Amino acid sequence: MSMYEGVIQDLIDELGRLPGVGPKSAQRLAFHILDAESSDMERLAQAILTVKNKVAFCPVCFNITEQELCFICADPKREDDKICVVEESKDVMAIERTRTFKGKYHVLGGAINPLGGVGPEQLHVRELITRLSDDKVQEVILAMDPNLEGEATSTYLARLMSTLEIKVSRLASGLPVGGDLEYADEVTLGRAFEGRLTISG
Amino acid sequence: MSMYEGVIQDLIDELGRLPGVGPKSAQRLAFHILDAESSDMERLAQAILTVKNKVAFCPVCFNITEQELCFICADPKREDDKICVVEESKDVMAIERTRTFKGKYHVLGGAINPLGGVGPEQLHVRELITRLSDDKVQEVILAMDPNLEGEATSTYLARLMSTLEIKVSRLASGLPVGGDLEYADEVTLGRAFEGRLTISG
Repeated sequence: MSMYEGVIQDLIDELGRLPGVGPKSAQRLAFHILDAESSDMERLAQAILTVKNKVAFCPVCFNITEQELCFICADPKREDDKICVVEESKDVMAIERTRTFKGKYHVLGGAINPLGGVGPEQLHVRELITRLSDDKVQEVILAMDPNLEGEATSTYLARLMSTLEIKVSRLASGLPVGGDLEYADEVTLGRAFEGRLTISG
Repeated sequence: MSMYEGVIQDLIDELGRLPGVGPKSAQRLAFHILDAESSDMERLAQAILTVKNKVAFCPVCFNITEQELCFICADPKREDDKICVVEESKDVMAIERTRTFKGKYHVLGGAINPLGGVGPEQLHVRELITRLSDDKVQEVILAMDPNLEGEATSTYLARLMSTLEIKVSRLASGLPVGGDLEYADEVTLGRAFEGRLTISG
């Protein structure tokens, strides 16, 4: 379909491999890059390379970091007795934005997905269990994505930790705040019912 | 809003400046880049830099090119007597895909847009008129975008060329093929009526 050749087509191909960028978007981005200031595009290319060179994973929790330890593991004010387990680094940021959690994190690096070839061995599960052998940890909060793979991962981890003397909790399911009850899917609405809170009486 | 720092935030900022990439997409792309193979991301960064270094504009028609002349101006089989005037290089590609035009092109580099500070002096209008002084050109086909700026540009160019002994034509307006009559906007439907073709009688 494409009429382009050489370096422009190369760029369209590379952009088209990014998630959520279809052939039309890739073409539009490529033409934007062609028209843009060279200095701006050099900054973009450099930012890509710098991230690949400078960002590493925290050896304790596997969050992304530019330092030896991530900013949470390095912070002495964070509570040592709670670990919130998430799939990805961006989930850490999402929870941090809520400002409700003062403990530490553990980033699994994904969720269990047998069809996709992802089992517990491909995730940082062993390292989590090692961290729990430390007496300090009192509670593990499972904060997986609310989908099939996330639920499977939660179930697996809960079973794995059931023999340990540690409280295991998971995030509440329910209606999204600001949402509309009638548009909630039945699973979410069902969970909201099951998890209903007594207000009085 | 953002919790990121340092090189990751730099990358999110740079990605967010691309057209059609909002803050959420920029974050998603940045995390994809973090997770992707370094060699793939080096190829992407290199493709951006190479395009900026290697692609230039054809000195005759202002289409993009990696050579001295663009592939159309350099092709002796293209007809010299017709010039199709377009706004951008990607419009050249769109028309080439139809395989209906065998003449040459002239890329204006945009459309007249007084509010955006784009007048005829900012476009390759003078170079177009210079090309027309050559006796060979018999017809100029105006193929601007069917919007306000495109129409203004067509009107301006048609008036400018009215004193020359050259046929000036423009693309037909009408219903898009594969479209649904009832969903066509009234301007398009009106144009389709005005431009109706006699089938018989």
